Amino acid sequence: MTDARSPARLASPGDTATLARMLVDFNAEYDEETPSLEVLESRLGTLLRTDRFWAALAGDPPVAFATVTERDSPYYEGRVGYLEDLYVRPELRGQGIGGDIMRLLLDEARRRALGLVEIGVDEPDVDAMRFYESHGFIHRDPETGDRAFHIYQEF
Amino acid sequence: MTDARSPARLASPGDTATLARMLVDFNAEYDEETPSLEVLESRLGTLLRTDRFWAALAGDPPVAFATVTERDSPYYEGRVGYLEDLYVRPELRGQGIGGDIMRLLLDEARRRALGLVEIGVDEPDVDAMRFYESHGFIHRDPETGDRAFHIYQEF
Repeated sequence: MTDARSPARLASPGDTATLARMLVDFNAEYDEETPSLEVLESRLGTLLRTDRFWAALAGDPPVAFATVTERDSPYYEGRVGYLEDLYVRPELRGQGIGGDIMRLLLDEARRRALGLVEIGVDEPDVDAMRFYESHGFIHRDPETGDRAFHIYQEF
Repeated sequence: MTDARSPARLASPGDTATLARMLVDFNAEYDEETPSLEVLESRLGTLLRTDRFWAALAGDPPVAFATVTERDSPYYEGRVGYLEDLYVRPELRGQGIGGDIMRLLLDEARRRALGLVEIGVDEPDVDAMRFYESHGFIHRDPETGDRAFHIYQEF
């Protein structure tokens, strides 16, 4: 039996292969290239054993996941988390599974005393933006009303 | 004698007080709150002794600075750098000092084998966006043309 509404839980190193598989599927849905499954398994296996990377899963077997990586900042006593990915299998969307994962993430962020959690959201992805805003994320600076863009350079 | 065009260099823990002072001045210019000078000195002194935080300075005495913090990512073999701040004293802008610092940052990012460097840029700050783009940063996804927003939640 599968149970898509099994409660969200934090991932352990034993979830490495499952996470790698979902990460590949997630990027395939958006036509984004990823490292190979083998490389992802190796990296995720290493990262899940550090205290600067964590992940959440939902469903049994898992049908949704999220990953958070942490950096330091002079602006906060705690670390800053970056929500790298949040994914629910397409056929299971609209049932609150993403919300379950997000609540777990925010609880865990508080438990870890993070100062801030950041996300990069593609401009056309208005559903994602609405979802994140409904969970307390801020799109515009509360004082200036300005939005900020996420820009990057690969090496 | 002061020399604003003294070559850009990486900061050492001995630069902690100078960096903290400039970080306060930078945020004051944009009416952003910061932790106190004492708290910043303590945090920067700690962070500059780690291998996940680094900074660059230019001028003698320094008149410009930048800070980079690093996180892990399953998408890259190397770490991901986040350019937290880049600042040139207002009366010395337009002389290429920011460009000197940026070239040093990108050289150091390559030396550290970072996979990616990210920046958050406020939407109205078109001069900053032009500057970053001139140094190779990408505002729109090369395949989709989409921009991405940087959103956040503080705790």
